[in-house]
Amino acid sequence: MPTGALPERAREMLAKPNPAVITTVRPDGQPVSVATWYRLDGDRILVNMDESRARLRYLRADPRVSLTVLDEGNWYTHISVQGRVTEFADDTDLSGIDSLSRHYGGNPYPVRDRPRVNAWISIDRWHGWGEFAE
Amino acid sequence: MPTGALPERAREMLAKPNPAVITTVRPDGQPVSVATWYRLDGDRILVNMDESRARLRYLRADPRVSLTVLDEGNWYTHISVQGRVTEFADDTDLSGIDSLSRHYGGNPYPVRDRPRVNAWISIDRWHGWGEFAE
Repeated sequence: MPTGALPERAREMLAKPNPAVITTVRPDGQPVSVATWYRLDGDRILVNMDESRARLRYLRADPRVSLTVLDEGNWYTHISVQGRVTEFADDTDLSGIDSLSRHYGGNPYPVRDRPRVNAWISIDRWHGWGEFAE
Repeated sequence: MPTGALPERAREMLAKPNPAVITTVRPDGQPVSVATWYRLDGDRILVNMDESRARLRYLRADPRVSLTVLDEGNWYTHISVQGRVTEFADDTDLSGIDSLSRHYGGNPYPVRDRPRVNAWISIDRWHGWGEFAE
């Protein structure tokens, strides 16, 4: 399981608007996963949540996270990253969720009246399958 | 987040050979996720692992698991289940992995010389999005 920087072809795969699943850990230790939008932002991964989401509470209590990204063309090619949220920021102008919404669908996010939060995930380890199998 | 039995239309969705991501928790608390085959088996969910997989060790230490299933036709429709592995069994005749391989690809599993293990997940809670949003 590589621990260094992502190689360029892994970055290229992650740069696409792929299906992805994020997992946080509840304070009692139960893992909780859900499909999510994500976006590669420099060496970190941006996700964005409605402020009311339980997983935002879980992440503030334990920032460790796992993200599995399935290639949009063939889900047998997938990359999983283990990391930690190293920055939270209120998405006051909704530019974070808009960047994700444009990335996936081409348009700004339709819901404008709910507070949202950006979270940037730093990658500790990653591993790949399919095209990225070692 | 419903805690009762799966309704019929959720069972119908889960019965398809959908992309899915399973998350286990490492003994130090780090969540670890990976794409997986799964199959609805009665009221439980069957997954199957090579005996050497780290996540089999993690599951034997802490059987709690999260599984997110993305609809094969439109991943905005997805169902996540939180549960526990309530049964492990050596897949000595490879009938478990063959049932998964046939479900997803129509053929028996090609690798015949590696010991594998079946694990059945009992569902504690589930929630849905897209067609299954509450």
